[in-house]
Amino acid sequence: MKLTLIGIGTGNPDHLTLEAVRAINAQDLILIPRKGEGKADLAELRHEICAEVLTNSETKIVEFDLPVRDEATLDYRKRVDDWHDAIAQVWAQTIAAHPGAERAALLVWGDPSLYDSTLRIASRLNPQPQMQVIAGITSLQALTAAHAIPINEIGAPFVVTTGRRLRDEGWPAGVDTAAIMLDGACAFQDLPGDQFYIWWGGYVGMREQIICAGPLHEVCDKIIRMRADARAAHGWIMDIYVLRKLSD
Amino acid sequence: MKLTLIGIGTGNPDHLTLEAVRAINAQDLILIPRKGEGKADLAELRHEICAEVLTNSETKIVEFDLPVRDEATLDYRKRVDDWHDAIAQVWAQTIAAHPGAERAALLVWGDPSLYDSTLRIASRLNPQPQMQVIAGITSLQALTAAHAIPINEIGAPFVVTTGRRLRDEGWPAGVDTAAIMLDGACAFQDLPGDQFYIWWGGYVGMREQIICAGPLHEVCDKIIRMRADARAAHGWIMDIYVLRKLSD
Repeated sequence: MKLTLIGIGTGNPDHLTLEAVRAINAQDLILIPRKGEGKADLAELRHEICAEVLTNSETKIVEFDLPVRDEATLDYRKRVDDWHDAIAQVWAQTIAAHPGAERAALLVWGDPSLYDSTLRIASRLNPQPQMQVIAGITSLQALTAAHAIPINEIGAPFVVTTGRRLRDEGWPAGVDTAAIMLDGACAFQDLPGDQFYIWWGGYVGMREQIICAGPLHEVCDKIIRMRADARAAHGWIMDIYVLRKLSD
Repeated sequence: MKLTLIGIGTGNPDHLTLEAVRAINAQDLILIPRKGEGKADLAELRHEICAEVLTNSETKIVEFDLPVRDEATLDYRKRVDDWHDAIAQVWAQTIAAHPGAERAALLVWGDPSLYDSTLRIASRLNPQPQMQVIAGITSLQALTAAHAIPINEIGAPFVVTTGRRLRDEGWPAGVDTAAIMLDGACAFQDLPGDQFYIWWGGYVGMREQIICAGPLHEVCDKIIRMRADARAAHGWIMDIYVLRKLSD
């Protein structure tokens, strides 16, 4: 059994690489998760992508119901571990329901390497399939492309981290640039606004894309407002930003 | 005037996104740098990409001679600044030689956001063109795809930095994971090998790709040897690696 994780970029079907198009067409099965009514499960986007690029009539698209996390499990790590176990089991069952299928793929938002669990879930499969990863455009790249900025200063390092870390631990040591992902609470608002520049984006790469950039103290409130309005309008939001410490 | 910087990935023409293919076909001019005989200038790869995906007969492919850095300028920063000025000037001249051209593009190795000077050179153009960036697969993503690994641990941050920084400043503060780029001197060999795991790759994403992973103390010498052999065989090498600090 060969399992291919195909990075599909961030919601723009044109983010697909030619390698991803070939990989999609090389499969027996494409597994698409379904989260249940009303959830932004991106199933529609994945179907849209397949409709656009899949030309191999032998490739079957198969939906499966994504297990839900058991919120009764209080320990966060155990809750996630159990959930990943359950997902791996559903993948195995879905593949087993198609005897003869030798190649299956999952379409992964962004790139399978960056803040994504698909590789960790796949490592639970037993027997372990042969793994293949096809890189995809990340939200961080969609953000820097939208703002037409380099992420690093010349020869300088940068950190990629989460909103939770920024809130709990403050500005990361040893860098002037940080990319912040998975921030549901605008952690940037706790930083001294006159010391930072921010490049922010919501739905980066998608038709709904909104961006804002400027000295943090000037645009902080505007971004919080833009984010809240967009979230109310669409029912969900994914956003990401880069912060750069200004020189003294 | 509109200038589009198109990320083309790391030497595998299939790294091109559908967005990049569309962007290539939307240009009046595609500018391809030529470094002079015998240099690995990737001009061939860029021509190969155009030959494969360019279907717009109105799009002209135009080569220009890349200026050389004046090694007589001792200050590194000034040497690079002067060089970037000279490149911007050659771009402007090359575009001006094609009156009527309104859209020009450069094909950028990897992604224009990551350790690449193209955006900085473009900012020197006067008048400033309208800038557009098309994201491309980076060598870091090609590396993690080749090893089928996530770059971050769950919810954890990572640093992207250079070989020079690792050598001069030691292990970056506050992270257990670092991706090292632009390292011509195997800076990993100065780390305590029993405390790290390394995922290394040369020519990642290309036909010539070679990879090696393991506890640093076990594979350090092997990687140094693989790198030297490959460099001797091909005349050049580009490599990259991810290091992860092992838990105590």
